[in-house]
Amino acid sequence: MTANNTTTAAASEPASLNQTKTATIPNGTSRKSAPSHPLGPLTAGEISKSSDLIRAQWPEGTKFQFKIVTLLEPPKTELAPYLQAERAGQPVKPIDRKSQVVYYLRNTDKLHEAVVNLSVSKVESNVRLGPFIHAPGDGEELVEIEKAMLADPGVRAEIEKLKLPEGSVVVSDPWIYGSDGVHDGLFSDQKRVKQCFLYMRDPQNSKEEDGCHYAFPLPISPVIDTVDYKVIRIDILPTGKDSTVKPLEAWKGPVPPNEYIPEAQPNGLRTDLKPLRVVQPEGASFTVEEYSEDGLGKVLKWQKWEFKVGFNQREGMVLYDVHYDGNPLFYRLSLSDMAIPYADPRHPFHKKQAFDLGDVGAGIMANNLSLGCDCLGSIYYISGVLADTEGKPQDYPNVVCIHEQDSGLLWKHTNYRTNRAVAVRNRELVLQSILTVSNYEYILAWNFSLAGDITYEVRATGILSTQPVDLDLTKEPHPYGTVVHPGVLAAYHQHFFSLRVDPMIAGAENQQVVYEEALAIPRDPKENPHGVGYTVKRTPITTSGGYDLDTARNRTFKLVNTGVKNSVNGASVAYKIHVPPMQPILADAESYHHRRAEFADHSIYVTRYKENELFAGGYYTNQSRGGTGVRAWAARKDDLAPSSGSPVVWVQFGINHIPRIEDFPVMPMEMIKVTMRPANFFDRNPALDVPPSRQEFNCSVGLNGVVDGVAELKVGEEGKACCS
Amino acid sequence: MTANNTTTAAASEPASLNQTKTATIPNGTSRKSAPSHPLGPLTAGEISKSSDLIRAQWPEGTKFQFKIVTLLEPPKTELAPYLQAERAGQPVKPIDRKSQVVYYLRNTDKLHEAVVNLSVSKVESNVRLGPFIHAPGDGEELVEIEKAMLADPGVRAEIEKLKLPEGSVVVSDPWIYGSDGVHDGLFSDQKRVKQCFLYMRDPQNSKEEDGCHYAFPLPISPVIDTVDYKVIRIDILPTGKDSTVKPLEAWKGPVPPNEYIPEAQPNGLRTDLKPLRVVQPEGASFTVEEYSEDGLGKVLKWQKWEFKVGFNQREGMVLYDVHYDGNPLFYRLSLSDMAIPYADPRHPFHKKQAFDLGDVGAGIMANNLSLGCDCLGSIYYISGVLADTEGKPQDYPNVVCIHEQDSGLLWKHTNYRTNRAVAVRNRELVLQSILTVSNYEYILAWNFSLAGDITYEVRATGILSTQPVDLDLTKEPHPYGTVVHPGVLAAYHQHFFSLRVDPMIAGAENQQVVYEEALAIPRDPKENPHGVGYTVKRTPITTSGGYDLDTARNRTFKLVNTGVKNSVNGASVAYKIHVPPMQPILADAESYHHRRAEFADHSIYVTRYKENELFAGGYYTNQSRGGTGVRAWAARKDDLAPSSGSPVVWVQFGINHIPRIEDFPVMPMEMIKVTMRPANFFDRNPALDVPPSRQEFNCSVGLNGVVDGVAELKVGEEGKACCS
Repeated sequence: MTANNTTTAAASEPASLNQTKTATIPNGTSRKSAPSHPLGPLTAGEISKSSDLIRAQWPEGTKFQFKIVTLLEPPKTELAPYLQAERAGQPVKPIDRKSQVVYYLRNTDKLHEAVVNLSVSKVESNVRLGPFIHAPGDGEELVEIEKAMLADPGVRAEIEKLKLPEGSVVVSDPWIYGSDGVHDGLFSDQKRVKQCFLYMRDPQNSKEEDGCHYAFPLPISPVIDTVDYKVIRIDILPTGKDSTVKPLEAWKGPVPPNEYIPEAQPNGLRTDLKPLRVVQPEGASFTVEEYSEDGLGKVLKWQKWEFKVGFNQREGMVLYDVHYDGNPLFYRLSLSDMAIPYADPRHPFHKKQAFDLGDVGAGIMANNLSLGCDCLGSIYYISGVLADTEGKPQDYPNVVCIHEQDSGLLWKHTNYRTNRAVAVRNRELVLQSILTVSNYEYILAWNFSLAGDITYEVRATGILSTQPVDLDLTKEPHPYGTVVHPGVLAAYHQHFFSLRVDPMIAGAENQQVVYEEALAIPRDPKENPHGVGYTVKRTPITTSGGYDLDTARNRTFKLVNTGVKNSVNGASVAYKIHVPPMQPILADAESYHHRRAEFADHSIYVTRYKENELFAGGYYTNQSRGGTGVRAWAARKDDLAPSSGSPVVWVQFGINHIPRIEDFPVMPMEMIKVTMRPANFFDRNPALDVPPSRQEFNCSVGLNGVVDGVAELKVGEEGKACCS
Repeated sequence: MTANNTTTAAASEPASLNQTKTATIPNGTSRKSAPSHPLGPLTAGEISKSSDLIRAQWPEGTKFQFKIVTLLEPPKTELAPYLQAERAGQPVKPIDRKSQVVYYLRNTDKLHEAVVNLSVSKVESNVRLGPFIHAPGDGEELVEIEKAMLADPGVRAEIEKLKLPEGSVVVSDPWIYGSDGVHDGLFSDQKRVKQCFLYMRDPQNSKEEDGCHYAFPLPISPVIDTVDYKVIRIDILPTGKDSTVKPLEAWKGPVPPNEYIPEAQPNGLRTDLKPLRVVQPEGASFTVEEYSEDGLGKVLKWQKWEFKVGFNQREGMVLYDVHYDGNPLFYRLSLSDMAIPYADPRHPFHKKQAFDLGDVGAGIMANNLSLGCDCLGSIYYISGVLADTEGKPQDYPNVVCIHEQDSGLLWKHTNYRTNRAVAVRNRELVLQSILTVSNYEYILAWNFSLAGDITYEVRATGILSTQPVDLDLTKEPHPYGTVVHPGVLAAYHQHFFSLRVDPMIAGAENQQVVYEEALAIPRDPKENPHGVGYTVKRTPITTSGGYDLDTARNRTFKLVNTGVKNSVNGASVAYKIHVPPMQPILADAESYHHRRAEFADHSIYVTRYKENELFAGGYYTNQSRGGTGVRAWAARKDDLAPSSGSPVVWVQFGINHIPRIEDFPVMPMEMIKVTMRPANFFDRNPALDVPPSRQEFNCSVGLNGVVDGVAELKVGEEGKACCS
């Protein structure tokens, strides 16, 4: 490693509980700055420099709407040797820092993509994109759209027809306008527009800004142009069981509220959940170093794990250069994309398919996490810096929280002959980010284990995107969703996630993807006379393409290094991937949902590594039309012989969300995990050297022994009970 | 509830770290005893009384080998009204206490099954079983078999041929002798026998009683009769890649050891894992009451959950009468069976299929759990009493540990307009038992959530059952297993678990099992013009049988009450079952593995409730021949209309264990879970009333802010940092 600032994670002041993102960057930092690094997130200075250099390309006075100013990562051919030299403590060959800048000329549809070489302060390329290519949304736009749309006389006239209760407050969730290939004369996919879904606050409690308006959906849905913020169409929603659209009529109430905020719970809150605290009296077991300028890139070291953590506009948290006990494992790991197609085929719901990373950005949606709320125990936070729409740096404080957690027993064995038990607890290092995408939340985490496992965990929570249904249909089944409240339909929808895995299993070379299947052996009088035998068949993936699980065959995908053999049994060293089962996208193959969600049809895609192929749904997913993502890349039928190049594995997983009434007004999280686990990589259980569990170390408290009465344990006593 | 002793779980002395089970029962207890209850585990007195009454049936001097003395639960027709009255606080109609007693006349094959009515002190039935019915093994027998077998001159003569290093110590794992239908003249399935697999301790360190002998398997496998402990056959094991059995020759070394005990780790233990403690300063949030005599039955109350916990020889922990917020959910929940068929088709490995519950018993294998090792935090232990082979009560201390754990965020939403975030953490109540089955361990837990979920979690750990493979084949792939150490093969094997779910969703009546599928809607110019629509199809299960998952259709099984409708949307209230995917048993349909593992071919079996159908593989699995378990019951094609009776659901799940070298010498746990989750059961998110996360409550510690140095947090300081 190059010399960097080292911090042993230890206690400090609690962070602010404030969720607000501050828009200013402190001028300079008092700490020594780490040097520039090819994987360092763009610094505030680099963001400013990037947008300044772009501005200089245009006449003075030109107005810009910057959408993305982000690190352009160097080609792997340059980066891999750099990282190897860095690790070996050898001199590194400097690599130019570059940024990618995506921007509109403000209030136009003129979208540009530029590459800025920051090292030489030069714009290397600057091209106009299109047609049919649109940049993602941003938060400023979201607010602007709601304001303009609600001020529109046409929209107001339609709302009038609903004769809403006195004092009602109408709010709107602007939605991405999914392409459907239909150009209806008014406009086309060439325009970047938003579809607004309208709601009102509980009419009995209109002043409550945090009321759950999703319990009061309205049947009006204006479409607004993002160039001039003009309403260009007002859709009236079908509210029955078929596509019939009825003329607007007076809103029918009363409908009770359904609030998630604690002070609005009709029966108050539970009072019998006692505190449970996680205490690390000697501090945390991980260390944090800074590998790049302004300390924006972090190196985490914990229990033989070592990796770099970056953060960007599109993917949020990214892991680089992941090693275990000095062994290379992964070059780059990130959530690459997300697609959420909805089941309701009726206009305009048929357009609902969110690509939250490409349509908005996991970085700019990342929550400012706060102490005591989002993690428990001893927490280290990573903050980010991203560009705002003026191309200025904006702080994103506490976007990643890092902590250790106990996760029960990792292994145990009792020798029944001697009654000696050896039990080892598992500890996990968790790096968590939380995204708020308008109504919905994703809690995303990387978990590292003591036994060499690395798990990506998604918790889906937040509020269902609801739509109106006729009040008199509330108690009937609906073909496209679940009624979750009187007059409120939550449509069925699928969630697809695509995890991009760029492997360097035991080195950069000889990477191969193999799947294994457990197959019965036919009966044979000599070798399988009782019909119980089975064996494992290994199939290397030799051509890029989409692949699926097959439970009946126990199909398991492995990342293999064909050039490195296990020292004990001679197997090629590998990591296997535990992929949860996923129903493929239900929208038919000709549909725009299917075309656009290029990763939603197979659990696994394997492509040959190519520069700038980072996002499974393509770079620009907003109103995309397909053909620019992983399905298209896989269709090249690239040779995947290890000598031809490195494979990249795209792991798809997801859930078909058939809403339960229990998912409203806010959803108890649904969890889904992908685990990568060593398989003949090490020469034995890599967690054998974890110290066994001992009471002196864990200081648990026995609750038995006070059987005939009630005993209260006072604060602090628990320590005395065990740690003497 | 009847009046019982109530305990708020709070601190006491740490429990003993000793894993030894004490064999005596304290004479009397100082606490007030709860009254007799039809679901109370047998008391020490009842165990003694049962065996005494059996003894009195036989001439004086008769010797017995008691295998099972357990509660015979009353028929549901009597029990259901009892539990309802109990809950309503009405007088209960007493139900006779009965025990079931399974015993041999010692040193014979004369197996008997008796029913003892304890309330009237009378043996109600007492019948001899067989042929082809065999009782499970027991610990006493295990030790006896090893001793007798190793003393056998024939076995010694074979071991001589191996010319083991001076001072070698040979040990043996006696295995259940799986039926194969072959009567080879020497004996038949009518004899209860054990197949012994031999190992030696590390010859360089033979004195280490806790050395891992599984790293030194020997090719000799005697078969021993359990009636007279005489060796009746000595199998020589095939050690190549096919069924060829070579003459025994001198053992080839040296083979290095592969130890799991901490003091034997070649590079010592990790020193950088810092303590992580779970502290509940105000005590735990659950209470424990005693519902039956001697306090053996416990009622747990926690966060609107209420259920009874029992413990028996066969199933270990059993849950009864599970309610949430006063709503009936489950009548009875237990792990019903387990089958682990091995892939190696060669004699005698083809017989390896363990049924750990039926062949031995989850109760008698339950670990004595110890503070600081098996759970973390504030722990309450439940102890059990089971019969020994003399029919005397034996204490099983600390067989269940109960604690709360934090499990991350349960739900979160941030209103992007106001930036107000509401985040609620999940807390789980965990009831954990650990089984040691000779080489292997199962960590079994019920987890209850704040949102009405109940999860059964299995962690598979312990040591692989190994067998010898020629040293010169160590670095080659083997058709039936993974080489995990020089000369050591770990055969492929499948693990099947069967969870028995006896539902009373929202009441005892109108129970139905339904499966739902998400299916694409065909294109239609009017209703589905863009091809994106899909809907949910519901199919009630009307006939008993085996059913499977279908990922492509997102098939989901639900427990439904057809007579109770959700007050908001009118749907029948339900709990859905999240079933993990499972490769069905690979042994062919004619094989004894397949016939015996009556539950290993389908993810779901649904039967109509019938008395005494508790165990998916049948009551007597030891050397069973099939036809007595859930497949046979389902084949009755019982009508499952709610008016015809109640369904019982058998949820199968498992893993195909293709051993990794990392699974040796002890296996990092492999986790698998089944979750039952409300689906339109409640009228909204049932965890809305959980207080949001607050730093004042959680007292987390921020680690940022000390960037340029190393700060050590001293014990106790963390409290000051947050709880002022």
